[in-house]
Amino acid sequence: MKAVQVVGYDQNPRLADVPEPDITGPYDVIVRIGGAGVCRTDLHILEGQWAEKSGVALPYTIGHENAGWVHAVGSAVTNVAEGDKVIVHPLITCGLCRACRAGDDVHCAASQFPGIDTAGGYAEYLKTSARSVVKLDDALEPADVAALADAGLTAYHAAAKAARRLRPGDRCVVIGAGGLGHIGIQVLKALTAAELIVVDRNPDAVKLAESIGADHGVVADGGQVAAVRDLTGGAGAETVLDFVGEGGATRDGVAMLRRAGDYHVVGYGENIDVPTIDVISAEINFIGNLVGSYTDLCELMVLAAQDRVRLHTVRYPLEKFQDALDDLTAGRIRGRAILVP
Amino acid sequence: MKAVQVVGYDQNPRLADVPEPDITGPYDVIVRIGGAGVCRTDLHILEGQWAEKSGVALPYTIGHENAGWVHAVGSAVTNVAEGDKVIVHPLITCGLCRACRAGDDVHCAASQFPGIDTAGGYAEYLKTSARSVVKLDDALEPADVAALADAGLTAYHAAAKAARRLRPGDRCVVIGAGGLGHIGIQVLKALTAAELIVVDRNPDAVKLAESIGADHGVVADGGQVAAVRDLTGGAGAETVLDFVGEGGATRDGVAMLRRAGDYHVVGYGENIDVPTIDVISAEINFIGNLVGSYTDLCELMVLAAQDRVRLHTVRYPLEKFQDALDDLTAGRIRGRAILVP
Amino acid sequence: MKAVQVVGYDQNPRLADVPEPDITGPYDVIVRIGGAGVCRTDLHILEGQWAEKSGVALPYTIGHENAGWVHAVGSAVTNVAEGDKVIVHPLITCGLCRACRAGDDVHCAASQFPGIDTAGGYAEYLKTSARSVVKLDDALEPADVAALADAGLTAYHAAAKAARRLRPGDRCVVIGAGGLGHIGIQVLKALTAAELIVVDRNPDAVKLAESIGADHGVVADGGQVAAVRDLTGGAGAETVLDFVGEGGATRDGVAMLRRAGDYHVVGYGENIDVPTIDVISAEINFIGNLVGSYTDLCELMVLAAQDRVRLHTVRYPLEKFQDALDDLTAGRIRGRAILVP
Amino acid sequence: MKAVQVVGYDQNPRLADVPEPDITGPYDVIVRIGGAGVCRTDLHILEGQWAEKSGVALPYTIGHENAGWVHAVGSAVTNVAEGDKVIVHPLITCGLCRACRAGDDVHCAASQFPGIDTAGGYAEYLKTSARSVVKLDDALEPADVAALADAGLTAYHAAAKAARRLRPGDRCVVIGAGGLGHIGIQVLKALTAAELIVVDRNPDAVKLAESIGADHGVVADGGQVAAVRDLTGGAGAETVLDFVGEGGATRDGVAMLRRAGDYHVVGYGENIDVPTIDVISAEINFIGNLVGSYTDLCELMVLAAQDRVRLHTVRYPLEKFQDALDDLTAGRIRGRAILVP
Repeated sequence: MKAVQVVGYDQNPRLADVPEPDITGPYDVIVRIGGAGVCRTDLHILEGQWAEKSGVALPYTIGHENAGWVHAVGSAVTNVAEGDKVIVHPLITCGLCRACRAGDDVHCAASQFPGIDTAGGYAEYLKTSARSVVKLDDALEPADVAALADAGLTAYHAAAKAARRLRPGDRCVVIGAGGLGHIGIQVLKALTAAELIVVDRNPDAVKLAESIGADHGVVADGGQVAAVRDLTGGAGAETVLDFVGEGGATRDGVAMLRRAGDYHVVGYGENIDVPTIDVISAEINFIGNLVGSYTDLCELMVLAAQDRVRLHTVRYPLEKFQDALDDLTAGRIRGRAILVP
Repeated sequence: MKAVQVVGYDQNPRLADVPEPDITGPYDVIVRIGGAGVCRTDLHILEGQWAEKSGVALPYTIGHENAGWVHAVGSAVTNVAEGDKVIVHPLITCGLCRACRAGDDVHCAASQFPGIDTAGGYAEYLKTSARSVVKLDDALEPADVAALADAGLTAYHAAAKAARRLRPGDRCVVIGAGGLGHIGIQVLKALTAAELIVVDRNPDAVKLAESIGADHGVVADGGQVAAVRDLTGGAGAETVLDFVGEGGATRDGVAMLRRAGDYHVVGYGENIDVPTIDVISAEINFIGNLVGSYTDLCELMVLAAQDRVRLHTVRYPLEKFQDALDDLTAGRIRGRAILVP
Repeated sequence: MKAVQVVGYDQNPRLADVPEPDITGPYDVIVRIGGAGVCRTDLHILEGQWAEKSGVALPYTIGHENAGWVHAVGSAVTNVAEGDKVIVHPLITCGLCRACRAGDDVHCAASQFPGIDTAGGYAEYLKTSARSVVKLDDALEPADVAALADAGLTAYHAAAKAARRLRPGDRCVVIGAGGLGHIGIQVLKALTAAELIVVDRNPDAVKLAESIGADHGVVADGGQVAAVRDLTGGAGAETVLDFVGEGGATRDGVAMLRRAGDYHVVGYGENIDVPTIDVISAEINFIGNLVGSYTDLCELMVLAAQDRVRLHTVRYPLEKFQDALDDLTAGRIRGRAILVP
Repeated sequence: MKAVQVVGYDQNPRLADVPEPDITGPYDVIVRIGGAGVCRTDLHILEGQWAEKSGVALPYTIGHENAGWVHAVGSAVTNVAEGDKVIVHPLITCGLCRACRAGDDVHCAASQFPGIDTAGGYAEYLKTSARSVVKLDDALEPADVAALADAGLTAYHAAAKAARRLRPGDRCVVIGAGGLGHIGIQVLKALTAAELIVVDRNPDAVKLAESIGADHGVVADGGQVAAVRDLTGGAGAETVLDFVGEGGATRDGVAMLRRAGDYHVVGYGENIDVPTIDVISAEINFIGNLVGSYTDLCELMVLAAQDRVRLHTVRYPLEKFQDALDDLTAGRIRGRAILVP
């Protein structure tokens, strides 16, 4: 089958002809790819940033945001059957460790991450597990939702966790209205009645945010902290969701937070660097957020099927992977690029 | 009446004769002091560290850990009567703001803090509010519990919050087995079945911790992170309670934390300085902790009456305040010094 | 001032001239009534059903759903000022008992209930407490929201409690789309993404429910249990909110409930009569719901100001109270009758 | 191998020679039985009470409280290995359904129950699943803990759920200090600081309860409701755990409950029959409790290894099964009878 492989770092990936994956374990599921999201992490992989961490041997196939149709299943698989339309949770988890048994499979003690440390979905077929496939509603198509498998799932996880604490009358600041923030805003609108204040450097992103439900948009041009404090009666917001995590976002974000508030860290890059005296005297919390669980992905697919979460996508044939990567690098993609085999 | 007053910064306080406080508002309560805790914060006040923050005018009476007997009450007070034995919550709160109405009175939008920004308890009488007095069980004496009013209450608040998440089989690291940590350990033993690992630089404090319930004691001599990881099967602890917050405690503490773990900040001094990539990839949380609420103080008094929380105290007559302050400065006090008028 | 008073049971109330209430306590607030809801409970009072329970002495003024403008305040009131537009929480609570301190003021150990056990709001002025008044947004008018003070608040409380557990993909059955159910549906739409199935005997009520957000309407004509089981894949709904509680509603409602589901009791009349073997083998819960807290009322007013919760009202001059009561008795009122002095 | 089989209802079971179970699926685990608890449910099975519900074909092997050593494992099993000492969760769950993925495996949509609807553990070997075995601490022996697998797990589940809400100063009534209640009391002591009031008809059971941590014992001789109300200042207890559920226990238990209290249903037999007006006016909850999850069983084994939960057992050789059943029927067993092959 055709697959796009990393053949060396700091060089372009290559389209190769590789053997189709086959069923070897009882819980294996082979998915015929309907769409594979092109993510900034793929660029980082190609630059070698993940080489040491993943320990993956080259060449290997990238692509960690996948959806398609079930092509074959192992002997013990009961939750999907050949032909089912599915989205693929990014992790293959063991199902037996303490975290998995508690429903917190993201912290599985023995997980694999196709596209990062084993063969991914820039290909015609992907091997995953029964524990990783979520059946899609008839209303959804694989290529439309593939990019929700990782980026969207992370945004859902953080927004849904934040929503558990937000009451009517509370304010929630969303820092960053790009790929993840844009999903986060839609999720917050679906799950809470809190007032949403969206902050972004890009005036167009702010406008987009307002069009999908932000109650207030703030262009981050230096006055963003003052603007948020004005919008919150001087007290700051009960919750900040930071989808940026660099360029001073955390310093600003903490300054936008109310006493006893929650600061959700999602984006990353810089350090959180805050005096413990400020943490205790305002009694604020910093909440880490990784990708969502299998259950989170099921819930996100419900919101997608209800048309409450939408994602703009641009499709490329699998063979045009280099165009997609180049367009992403150059900032030419609105929404997400999807490779379709 | 007699009162110990700050008359200038960087100089000793002075015993003065001042008017007794009287009832002016409907919810006022005058407490005849049975014991006032001598706290490190009092030393900081005398050094002027709080001068700007509190904005208090000199001279004024210090002392923010108070217990005694109700001496007089305002017209609307129904929860205590003259002669009742009480401990005094450190804050006077409004009862009407959003935080107060939600039971989170520590974040009251209009609170006063006797001993910090208004007259405190190094005196014969203290003026406080009906909202701040908790009746004591017959088994408890004011001078024995006074120091639980602030230091103990902070430790209770953090330990009880941590306990809500701790399950049998979880491990909880307590950094610092001094005044607060020592209360925290007793509270954790009362409220959870989690395994307690106590870390302190002082071998005597570690021994004391083991005698009051720590399952493991670790002397922080440079190998403490490795020791905790060994005790947790290499994975780290589900929860860290940091009662130190300086001298590298936060760096070490984060290294002791398990994936998806909670880091409770109680002690302060240094900065939390941690890469956002570490916060999100391990999905850890930093939880701020201020002093406890009125409800927390009620619960702590239950544990004290059940003899599950004990505090070693050394009593000084009010007139000997300077001895108490000097002994505290010199590290000569085991447990807490209490002034008794 | 003019006031409508109960002068005897099983006879019509009478318009009387009574003294205006005046400020006697520090937290007293006198409200000039802008609207007083006419509630089925008022009919029950007039029939004498509450006589023994409330122990109220006749004559007295009824009316427990009140909103208006602050007319005078006691010496210690800081949260409202003369002229403020307010809605009145139905209870006067002490603020000092354990329940009040925990934010659970509905379970206050020493509350009063104006309109039930002391003078209510079918009058020009009402005496209440600083702890009972919620300032209204500029967008809201007293006569429009008065009926949210009790009936609406009960529905909000139950729906918001249910919403805390509802996830996308869950189903929530609402039994009864009348006065309370109709508010409950709007609240559930604002706070959750759960699928709403509304069951009512009245086809018009079902249609109304669908127009305000119900995903499925079921006319209770005998086949309602089967209909709900069909709509839930045979498994039943994660949550049932029962605003009826009589005429077999609880028997049907339990049959609509999924394993591990929550049955919220709001309406009342009949007994819950269910074998303990069924409770444990399906591991279901019955959750009682009384009126909401002060904090709940603040949150409901946020939803009202956002126009997410609307109530249809019919206004009557205060003098026409008998028309309003007669129209309510005869079933001639769509929405709620409001007396306007 | 030897196995005790039901050969017909209302007749004694028979010791038979049956084939050893063998590995057929990837997640199968064969356990060599070290101890099998003899439970009242086994008597009910023999009387035919479960015949219709379970649909099991005779003859089959009973025994649903099992522990022992891993004898063989399927190809995909990674959490245990041959020779491991294990306790067996009573259910075999699918791991793929929505409930399983959320950690709530007790509500698995496709579970089996060895000893009830398939071959159980009154035998030399038992076939179960990797998802059902919990490794035992070195300090624990299979025959000592076997009876915790079902009866103990149910008590743990209910007590741990109740404990999540209990704060210092709260009161918890335990109705029934027999097999389950006796475990529940030990669990409550380990997990909470709440005051425990234990009610039982049997004065010896009350004495035993006091010896393992009950703060107050009440003999149910007709005055139990008044006694509990006295012990709770007239207000009732925050929580009632009812391990009886028959003979009027629920009527009494509800009368012992405080406003806003939780009534945990564990024992069964009679109906809950309570007016909805009482449920809403006191705003009480009825909480169903089935057996615990796999995670609950892990936690219970931690408490057992810490010696915080102990169970008195009487061992019988497997061949003496009829003596054990007869002794149980005749009430001659203190604690639990265990069959040892």
